[in-house]
Amino acid sequence: MLYWYKYVYKHPVEMIKIGIDAMGGDNAPEVVVKGAIKALSYLGTDCRLVLYGHKPSIETILDQQGIGADIFDIVHTPDQINMGDNPAESFISKQESSIVKAFNHLAEGRIDALASAGSTGAMMVGAKMIIKPLSGVLRPTIALSVPTTSGSKVTILDIGINIDCKPEVLEQYAVIGSLYARKVIGMDSPRVALLNIGEESGKGNAQAKAAYALLSKGNKQGKYNFVGNIEASHIFTGERADVVVCDGFVGNTIIKLIEGLHKINTSNNLTDNFWRGMDYEQIGGIPILGINAPVTVAHGKSTPEAIKNMIISTHDTVKSGLINQLKKSFQD
Amino acid sequence: MLYWYKYVYKHPVEMIKIGIDAMGGDNAPEVVVKGAIKALSYLGTDCRLVLYGHKPSIETILDQQGIGADIFDIVHTPDQINMGDNPAESFISKQESSIVKAFNHLAEGRIDALASAGSTGAMMVGAKMIIKPLSGVLRPTIALSVPTTSGSKVTILDIGINIDCKPEVLEQYAVIGSLYARKVIGMDSPRVALLNIGEESGKGNAQAKAAYALLSKGNKQGKYNFVGNIEASHIFTGERADVVVCDGFVGNTIIKLIEGLHKINTSNNLTDNFWRGMDYEQIGGIPILGINAPVTVAHGKSTPEAIKNMIISTHDTVKSGLINQLKKSFQD
Repeated sequence: MLYWYKYVYKHPVEMIKIGIDAMGGDNAPEVVVKGAIKALSYLGTDCRLVLYGHKPSIETILDQQGIGADIFDIVHTPDQINMGDNPAESFISKQESSIVKAFNHLAEGRIDALASAGSTGAMMVGAKMIIKPLSGVLRPTIALSVPTTSGSKVTILDIGINIDCKPEVLEQYAVIGSLYARKVIGMDSPRVALLNIGEESGKGNAQAKAAYALLSKGNKQGKYNFVGNIEASHIFTGERADVVVCDGFVGNTIIKLIEGLHKINTSNNLTDNFWRGMDYEQIGGIPILGINAPVTVAHGKSTPEAIKNMIISTHDTVKSGLINQLKKSFQD
Repeated sequence: MLYWYKYVYKHPVEMIKIGIDAMGGDNAPEVVVKGAIKALSYLGTDCRLVLYGHKPSIETILDQQGIGADIFDIVHTPDQINMGDNPAESFISKQESSIVKAFNHLAEGRIDALASAGSTGAMMVGAKMIIKPLSGVLRPTIALSVPTTSGSKVTILDIGINIDCKPEVLEQYAVIGSLYARKVIGMDSPRVALLNIGEESGKGNAQAKAAYALLSKGNKQGKYNFVGNIEASHIFTGERADVVVCDGFVGNTIIKLIEGLHKINTSNNLTDNFWRGMDYEQIGGIPILGINAPVTVAHGKSTPEAIKNMIISTHDTVKSGLINQLKKSFQD
């Protein structure tokens, strides 16, 4: 089934098709449609956006913007998954929702990637149950890439999906994060560090100690460039590491703390380039990694600017060939 | 022995004696002596500072400051524990160091409290091995109190001593943190929250889930005012909690992240009242809690201002009667 669609829909036109959940986020579909329009001028003519959502509403917004409806492919989905819905149950009961429909199309190869500012829970269910983990990947993960004060980007993973991780899972994050930094961010030999509460080897909790041993072994095998432990104080200087590996409980705490501090700064009228880079509007898309297709999520509060950035980063991921590289790495 | 000294040295004069490790910190003894001088004007005439360190050096600094040597008690200690020393071994091999001598005096009741900007590792060894945990306390801990944007203070514990904690240890942090906020910070009914990656009960890793159950039980028993989970984004607004309980791995990550961001802000000339409050110079003292006497540590980079604040917070702790209250709580 998958290959049939790939053949019929994709190869003859050689077009990258990015599915957008037009119903995802606090102010959908308006914000999503506006963001998709913004994205268009950054994408090549080889890219087509496919919006999944309530077609009449989408067409009304396009009309209000003075834009013809044929600028996007629109797949009408009468239903939608709401933030209060149980994600797993929704995939059974809401087959006609934007997210479920889009995931089915992604699995069938009718689109090449999917991006949504809707329920992250539902997106994870779709990623795991429909798109499925790459063979060999223990746990798909989500990663955050943000600018550092050195001008480079640091990629942190996991930021909240997998907690109480086995050390083997953290070791795989090094492979995934390193390849992401190479292929999508464009780094030559990204430095991978393990988040810890001390710099020396032998520091940390049981999980960190065991992960350190596995990462050292992986480094010797040439799987990635492991540079040792990093303390949280050094994450955002970019001076020590390009990829920071941690358990989802700690990673989630880090990004929520940053979010809270960003909000405090904003309400105190305190900002600069560094803190602007921490804004979810700029961050835009957060990739779900370790699955068979590019899937990106974004903050529910996303503005059109954030949606635009989510779409661009999804496009970058498709063009990068990351998925094939990951597939290859985990087959070895 | 303990009681004999208490009788001879303390009761007749009813003087609070605070021991200061004059050799602790990157620029000791100069910075420490200057900080102690600064502290004097904030302390009552019922308080006497006892400096442990190289007596001739201390006297030279006092002389340079134009201050008579009799302003402090000075206990000459020819040796000192350095940052590279093994803390536990130092307590055997360096009996004549400032830290070991001061801890012995504290155990004997010759001083009422001890403060140091020296090796935190050595201070923890002294706290656990010489002063010893209060009966019933599973793990002594260190707590950080910082100002929030609401103007109140939030106390976070543990910030790096105990990792891979049993849930029972986190439950005890609620007792310890709550009493600290009441007695030392002066809050009526401090709100205690569990750091977690979601607000609803049932969220988090195995440790957090188990701790949540114990804290709910303790709340029903009236041990403290447990208000549920808190996400890291809300720690510094002060709107939800006055005491935040977490495993030392996460707590240490939080304070190191704050330290790193503070440094980034400083180098970008970005500051305001909130970030000034996060400066270790202002924080001054970090109490070791759950042991039989008040012991305070401070950052190795402490300035005289930070040393002054460490001494004042140590004095506040002695005056608060916290230790007796904690003793009582853990006896119940």
